[in-house]
Amino acid sequence: MAAKSNPPKSPGQKAWGGRFEKATDASLEAFSSSVHFDRLLWRQDIRGSLAHAEMLAAQNILTQSEFQDLKAGLEQIHAEFETDRFVLEPSDEDIHMNIERRLFEIVGEVAGKLHSGRSRNDQVATDFLLWMRDAIVLLRRSLLGLRSALVERAGAELDIILPGYTHLQRAQPIRLSHHWLAYENMLARDDGRLADARVRMGSAPLGAGALAGSTLPLDRARTAQSLGFDGPARNSLDAVSSRDAALELLSSLSILSIHLSRLSEELVLWNSSEFGFIEFDDAFATGSSLMPQKKNPDVPELVRGKSGRVVGSLTGLLITMKGLPLSYNRDMQEDKEPVFDAVETVQGCLEILAPTLRTLRVNNEAMSLAASDPLLIATDLAEYLVERGVPFRDAHGVVGRVVAHAREQGRSLDALSTSELQEFHPALEIEPASFFSAERSLEARSLIGGPARNSVESEVEQLRAGHLALADQFEADE
Amino acid sequence: MAAKSNPPKSPGQKAWGGRFEKATDASLEAFSSSVHFDRLLWRQDIRGSLAHAEMLAAQNILTQSEFQDLKAGLEQIHAEFETDRFVLEPSDEDIHMNIERRLFEIVGEVAGKLHSGRSRNDQVATDFLLWMRDAIVLLRRSLLGLRSALVERAGAELDIILPGYTHLQRAQPIRLSHHWLAYENMLARDDGRLADARVRMGSAPLGAGALAGSTLPLDRARTAQSLGFDGPARNSLDAVSSRDAALELLSSLSILSIHLSRLSEELVLWNSSEFGFIEFDDAFATGSSLMPQKKNPDVPELVRGKSGRVVGSLTGLLITMKGLPLSYNRDMQEDKEPVFDAVETVQGCLEILAPTLRTLRVNNEAMSLAASDPLLIATDLAEYLVERGVPFRDAHGVVGRVVAHAREQGRSLDALSTSELQEFHPALEIEPASFFSAERSLEARSLIGGPARNSVESEVEQLRAGHLALADQFEADE
Amino acid sequence: MAAKSNPPKSPGQKAWGGRFEKATDASLEAFSSSVHFDRLLWRQDIRGSLAHAEMLAAQNILTQSEFQDLKAGLEQIHAEFETDRFVLEPSDEDIHMNIERRLFEIVGEVAGKLHSGRSRNDQVATDFLLWMRDAIVLLRRSLLGLRSALVERAGAELDIILPGYTHLQRAQPIRLSHHWLAYENMLARDDGRLADARVRMGSAPLGAGALAGSTLPLDRARTAQSLGFDGPARNSLDAVSSRDAALELLSSLSILSIHLSRLSEELVLWNSSEFGFIEFDDAFATGSSLMPQKKNPDVPELVRGKSGRVVGSLTGLLITMKGLPLSYNRDMQEDKEPVFDAVETVQGCLEILAPTLRTLRVNNEAMSLAASDPLLIATDLAEYLVERGVPFRDAHGVVGRVVAHAREQGRSLDALSTSELQEFHPALEIEPASFFSAERSLEARSLIGGPARNSVESEVEQLRAGHLALADQFEADE
Amino acid sequence: MAAKSNPPKSPGQKAWGGRFEKATDASLEAFSSSVHFDRLLWRQDIRGSLAHAEMLAAQNILTQSEFQDLKAGLEQIHAEFETDRFVLEPSDEDIHMNIERRLFEIVGEVAGKLHSGRSRNDQVATDFLLWMRDAIVLLRRSLLGLRSALVERAGAELDIILPGYTHLQRAQPIRLSHHWLAYENMLARDDGRLADARVRMGSAPLGAGALAGSTLPLDRARTAQSLGFDGPARNSLDAVSSRDAALELLSSLSILSIHLSRLSEELVLWNSSEFGFIEFDDAFATGSSLMPQKKNPDVPELVRGKSGRVVGSLTGLLITMKGLPLSYNRDMQEDKEPVFDAVETVQGCLEILAPTLRTLRVNNEAMSLAASDPLLIATDLAEYLVERGVPFRDAHGVVGRVVAHAREQGRSLDALSTSELQEFHPALEIEPASFFSAERSLEARSLIGGPARNSVESEVEQLRAGHLALADQFEADE
Repeated sequence: MAAKSNPPKSPGQKAWGGRFEKATDASLEAFSSSVHFDRLLWRQDIRGSLAHAEMLAAQNILTQSEFQDLKAGLEQIHAEFETDRFVLEPSDEDIHMNIERRLFEIVGEVAGKLHSGRSRNDQVATDFLLWMRDAIVLLRRSLLGLRSALVERAGAELDIILPGYTHLQRAQPIRLSHHWLAYENMLARDDGRLADARVRMGSAPLGAGALAGSTLPLDRARTAQSLGFDGPARNSLDAVSSRDAALELLSSLSILSIHLSRLSEELVLWNSSEFGFIEFDDAFATGSSLMPQKKNPDVPELVRGKSGRVVGSLTGLLITMKGLPLSYNRDMQEDKEPVFDAVETVQGCLEILAPTLRTLRVNNEAMSLAASDPLLIATDLAEYLVERGVPFRDAHGVVGRVVAHAREQGRSLDALSTSELQEFHPALEIEPASFFSAERSLEARSLIGGPARNSVESEVEQLRAGHLALADQFEADE
Repeated sequence: MAAKSNPPKSPGQKAWGGRFEKATDASLEAFSSSVHFDRLLWRQDIRGSLAHAEMLAAQNILTQSEFQDLKAGLEQIHAEFETDRFVLEPSDEDIHMNIERRLFEIVGEVAGKLHSGRSRNDQVATDFLLWMRDAIVLLRRSLLGLRSALVERAGAELDIILPGYTHLQRAQPIRLSHHWLAYENMLARDDGRLADARVRMGSAPLGAGALAGSTLPLDRARTAQSLGFDGPARNSLDAVSSRDAALELLSSLSILSIHLSRLSEELVLWNSSEFGFIEFDDAFATGSSLMPQKKNPDVPELVRGKSGRVVGSLTGLLITMKGLPLSYNRDMQEDKEPVFDAVETVQGCLEILAPTLRTLRVNNEAMSLAASDPLLIATDLAEYLVERGVPFRDAHGVVGRVVAHAREQGRSLDALSTSELQEFHPALEIEPASFFSAERSLEARSLIGGPARNSVESEVEQLRAGHLALADQFEADE
Repeated sequence: MAAKSNPPKSPGQKAWGGRFEKATDASLEAFSSSVHFDRLLWRQDIRGSLAHAEMLAAQNILTQSEFQDLKAGLEQIHAEFETDRFVLEPSDEDIHMNIERRLFEIVGEVAGKLHSGRSRNDQVATDFLLWMRDAIVLLRRSLLGLRSALVERAGAELDIILPGYTHLQRAQPIRLSHHWLAYENMLARDDGRLADARVRMGSAPLGAGALAGSTLPLDRARTAQSLGFDGPARNSLDAVSSRDAALELLSSLSILSIHLSRLSEELVLWNSSEFGFIEFDDAFATGSSLMPQKKNPDVPELVRGKSGRVVGSLTGLLITMKGLPLSYNRDMQEDKEPVFDAVETVQGCLEILAPTLRTLRVNNEAMSLAASDPLLIATDLAEYLVERGVPFRDAHGVVGRVVAHAREQGRSLDALSTSELQEFHPALEIEPASFFSAERSLEARSLIGGPARNSVESEVEQLRAGHLALADQFEADE
Repeated sequence: MAAKSNPPKSPGQKAWGGRFEKATDASLEAFSSSVHFDRLLWRQDIRGSLAHAEMLAAQNILTQSEFQDLKAGLEQIHAEFETDRFVLEPSDEDIHMNIERRLFEIVGEVAGKLHSGRSRNDQVATDFLLWMRDAIVLLRRSLLGLRSALVERAGAELDIILPGYTHLQRAQPIRLSHHWLAYENMLARDDGRLADARVRMGSAPLGAGALAGSTLPLDRARTAQSLGFDGPARNSLDAVSSRDAALELLSSLSILSIHLSRLSEELVLWNSSEFGFIEFDDAFATGSSLMPQKKNPDVPELVRGKSGRVVGSLTGLLITMKGLPLSYNRDMQEDKEPVFDAVETVQGCLEILAPTLRTLRVNNEAMSLAASDPLLIATDLAEYLVERGVPFRDAHGVVGRVVAHAREQGRSLDALSTSELQEFHPALEIEPASFFSAERSLEARSLIGGPARNSVESEVEQLRAGHLALADQFEADE
């Protein structure tokens, strides 16, 4: 047979060389190569190939023996990667061609059957989705680690009081636990976003071919299931053309990184001499060679700074995708680096913030002192009057005059007498010394989501239980 | 009673003037005013106030009669807004103070009781969430309108064939319906993102106070429920400090607008003389005064261009929120304009694209002609060999040589004879004239998500049913 | 003459209606209208029309009498705008059609001659460049106002010492003047960027027509000169297709707004109770109704927050322009709003920051106290040894041990005796009490750009002179 | 001497370990390390050190012999880098510590004297500025390469005519040369932005110390000059705190990359079957294994896609810098990667686009055919009337009716007779066959910046001369 006697084309050689009279310019090869970053996909690429081969065998497109050969070859390649023995050839421009080339070396000509009914387009889209699905699992675990650190501190620091701030001005006393839990609440929504994004990555592109599927009797439902997807993508063009999954992941990570930037900003502030609220553990800070008072908050500074990088990756990919017609365009090769970088960056931030947070020392006294000003409790006085029927806006006025009075006399609010207070409003039958106590004020705020001890403690308990359940689920998913 | 005899402070007057010796500079008032944009919140602000007042009455913080007065006043204000009779005073810097001022004018002093246990911080956060929840409902409806337009066309254009493109090069034949449904699939995920975002907006800030709740016996569960939330926010600091709901909405709209930019790019291309695939209805295009061949695709051009604006709004708010410590900071006043603008922009794009799409005329012949090249079907030949046991990479080689042979002879693939083909590979027992037919090729691609008529038709039916169910749900939600 | 007897087409009517069978849909008119924002261009549009008409007359395309009529009409419209009597018709979709319509009303048919050799494309590009050139002049003046405020404070506060920070940790003493001048230096570069951007806007698009110039004998050099440009754009396609001038302006404003965000962050920090370094004037701060200790730094908070908005505008326009083929595309209508918004935003920030800065009160004592720790002067000790031949890295080690010694003994560095010091290194012949003085340390740093009094004072003087020269230049340019 | 007898601290060891009881956590070391990217600065770091050492010697802070030792050591390190023999130790967290460590190994204790009067802060700021200044020189050369390719084609293709487009609709004929030069004009402004950015990088941070200079008698003017700066930075705080130079470079590269995305979009369009205007050289395109008609435009696709990455880097760094107080914060370590990536990306795009453009083949016939429609010349008819005194708006109307007439009769404009035309307006004394010629129309547009042959040719000549002068200047600068 003429065709058969032709030497099989080496997979490394350009398959489309026929009509071309010149070789691709070396500068274009360098410019368009992706193996320096898409090598991260090796695990997903092998997994996808195994699922594809198994289905081809089930559909009798491969014989069982061919399938066994391919399987053995792919497993050997897997082992080579795991033990760092796989040699990447930059000339095989991407990870997929590298693996295919190696498979030819190991199993010979049958390697050429693996590509039956599969195009680079659906293969890459599948690998990338698998990678992101795996990444989200890891991200959610790291995120849970940080959330647990927050809840742990919250559970232990119920009795530490500090000022809550608005406009970076001391406003009302709160519990430090309450403050930590504010971040837990944000991060819980971040976790929800990541989980939702993963659910929306549930459709497998495999079988979509270059753009229009295949004439071979592929069982797309089978490969989708064996790769852990909910089912096959319902439109082959969409399957190879869309990158909104990547954009959604980058959006979720951007919002998460903004939350981390806010927590970091506070840690930097609290670590300043002026606040003096916290001290980092020696293992999670750096010093200065000459100024021993300095303990530089490198961790939160870097985390805060890296939020720019994550958002930059999101913006970049949005721009890359803007205005692209269907279906695959080479522009879309730019989809992976921003995702890889953002995932690694956020993962790194979560992993370093958790122990930094767990090990920092709180300066209870500095916080209490800052929260001790009776003026931070003036709002309570107005609400006291409201409970006695005074319209809030009037009550505000009364308290304003009380405060001005104390100020003029250079006295603290808690130094006023009951009768002095009643000159401003007869309903003010309070005992200033006890009324203007941060602890009392906090306990009076026992509504849901408020800073009273019971409210916060009950949140801590519920969150702890939720975290345990989530950890169990993560373990079960393995 | 001294306090009572004081004239009630007009709500327009600065409540914190006491300690200040000078009035606020007019330039600061102008710079910090927000009423020129936050007036959009009037409906949500009144709704929130009604729910708050009703709860205050239930908790005996207001008497029934006071509540009835407030309710009547708020309803009157509502009517004034609806009939464009409400006069906004720029000096009442935001919509909330405008409404409060008007309430004083209508109901007198009792208006001062409405603010009991409520701060501007939780009020604004609640209004904004309510507004976004309402906006998402409207956005999803408009989005459904566009999705339905796509499915309608898909249902009607099953037999129109055009080339599918990769790299803007003709690649394989597809059905026009299949192409429209690719966008439906993207937009369906956009809808899912919007729906998820709304679910995550389910916690009511109301009752979180300035940052630490209130000492009054507020029933936060009640107000949350009466405003349609799932429940109260579980942390008062988070409730007034977080804007990730806005960021998530902006992310979803950004991704959606990128999808619209891609559809628009294709409409612009297809409308060019060179493609000649479509013509816009006169009502949804503009012309040129001199060149009657010109029918400018203003709709898709503007939609494509506006994707920049939406992403710019997302980027902007991410930057604004970056690095802000808890809890409220005035920077956060910059949260509304980007959201308002992005919602209005995307809503406008959806509303104009739907009729533009419904009314455009497809040039069936131009599409068919472009899809008719037998070369677009060469892949099928390789897969034919694969089905007969030839490794795919070898099959590729065979077909490459067939194609080169035809090319050298200046003949079309379908002009070759079966015996000529068999010289390249004996298994090539096909009838070229029928094999190299776009219709046959499409029908052979009957796998899930593929372009065969049945596959596409079944997708159309499922999507139609899904859209009807969604429309019913939207109606039920009203 | 048949043509002449036809009623002249009203300019408001669509000029390209001929081939269209249906009117433009109202929704498209609303969607594509721009008069709600491009009305800002009225002044530039009239100026451009006057220059164009004057040139047409010089080239004998208009008679002198026609020119005089047009001129009178345009001047009347100018007056109508200036006195707020011009009525914009939204149905005349943009400012240019509004002015043209009005000109017809005033001068009749001759208005139709104004458009000779001019297309909407070159007209809009010219108006927009003129607007940006004008805006930069105003921006630079406002910027100079802020820079002068910084230099004024610097001149007055040479003797106020505060800690310089790294990592928000106190590092070394500096003069407050030196700190203010750091911002002056940044803003001076911002000014340079704006000036350079304006220089690069020196080529007039007028005469580029729709994209390919005109067959009429236009004198492009004449109109360019009379509008204040350096000359005509050298390529008609570029002239109507490019928007990099807008992108450069937005970039310059973004960088400037980042600088303002940094200054603002410091003002917010310094205004906190914990720092207590500054107090804002009552006219440039807001208070809280109950907590008189609060003086909220709304100005710097809003300025800091608005940096997001400016960068969002830049990102948005970059996205809009990405991937657009030549020449004009309707997407480009989205160019003006981001520029208008960014210019207005930055202008507002500059105008409010200048008086805020001029009027704030510095708490000299708090700054001095924070800067008084002898540890902030430890570096000087190492450099003292370096001057005596000790390698810097060794000197560091010596000082580290001195510091540790003092710390162990709970003593301040300036409490050590000379002989104690010499136990660590014999060259340490210093008098600690005087050596560890912030003032002495500052005076020892008399190098260029350093914090010694003379260095800073000389910078102040040079900057003052530079500002005066710039102000003179601005005045001369008027 | 006690101090001398202490073992010199190895530079690799943390210099600030004294007060710390625990070692830095390995995770923090990994998280904060920068040597994997800042190794790119090696050349600038050595250059900076040599200049610093030479100045220290001139100021007698080093002896001549010490200076010679340091110089020899630094030169050896330089040689090691150039020959790839330098071994980077990740534990020496950045490039600066790696070089310092190696210097100790080579020259011993005297290496410790190199750091006299220099901090990591001013050292890094100097190295980074030097790197960017060098990068701009290289970028401008590559940019000139692309600009020259455009001008070369323009010079050779004066007689190729194609349609100019607006809204991607054929509008008026232009010369291909004119089209190429439109991009040259954009790129010339990009070059100007890069040049201006470099000028603004003219102040040397060296000598600014950690933030407040030094007490040693440094000669900052000398180091500034020997490193090629215009002079020393005038404010030490600004010198170590500002990164607007990087932001300006990223802005310039972003705008440039948007221009490249537009050129790329056109190349992709022109390479489609539908346009068929160009064909890429085999060396700068890739094919498809099966569809020989396909020649995928990978180069312009990748270039277009990479614009996202460059803008993402700009956005990212703007975010990182937003809201940072003075002076150095660790966040700023995130400044280099976006700049390095953007420079490498844009450089790569320029270098690959130039030969891609030089080698592409233009399909003259396809362009001519597309430009041949007489309707593209209808505007000329209106201007013909204008020259004969008809108001432009009326002339428009006349031509509109002519066009409608031809259209109704299914005739081309150039098939009408002179007398037929004169029925629409007596002044229409033209000879249609010659009047409706693209060539004639182009020649009539001989104004500055227009598409007439002489106009374009003269631009080509001026640009060629300008490029030669620039190339000479680049050579002279070496």
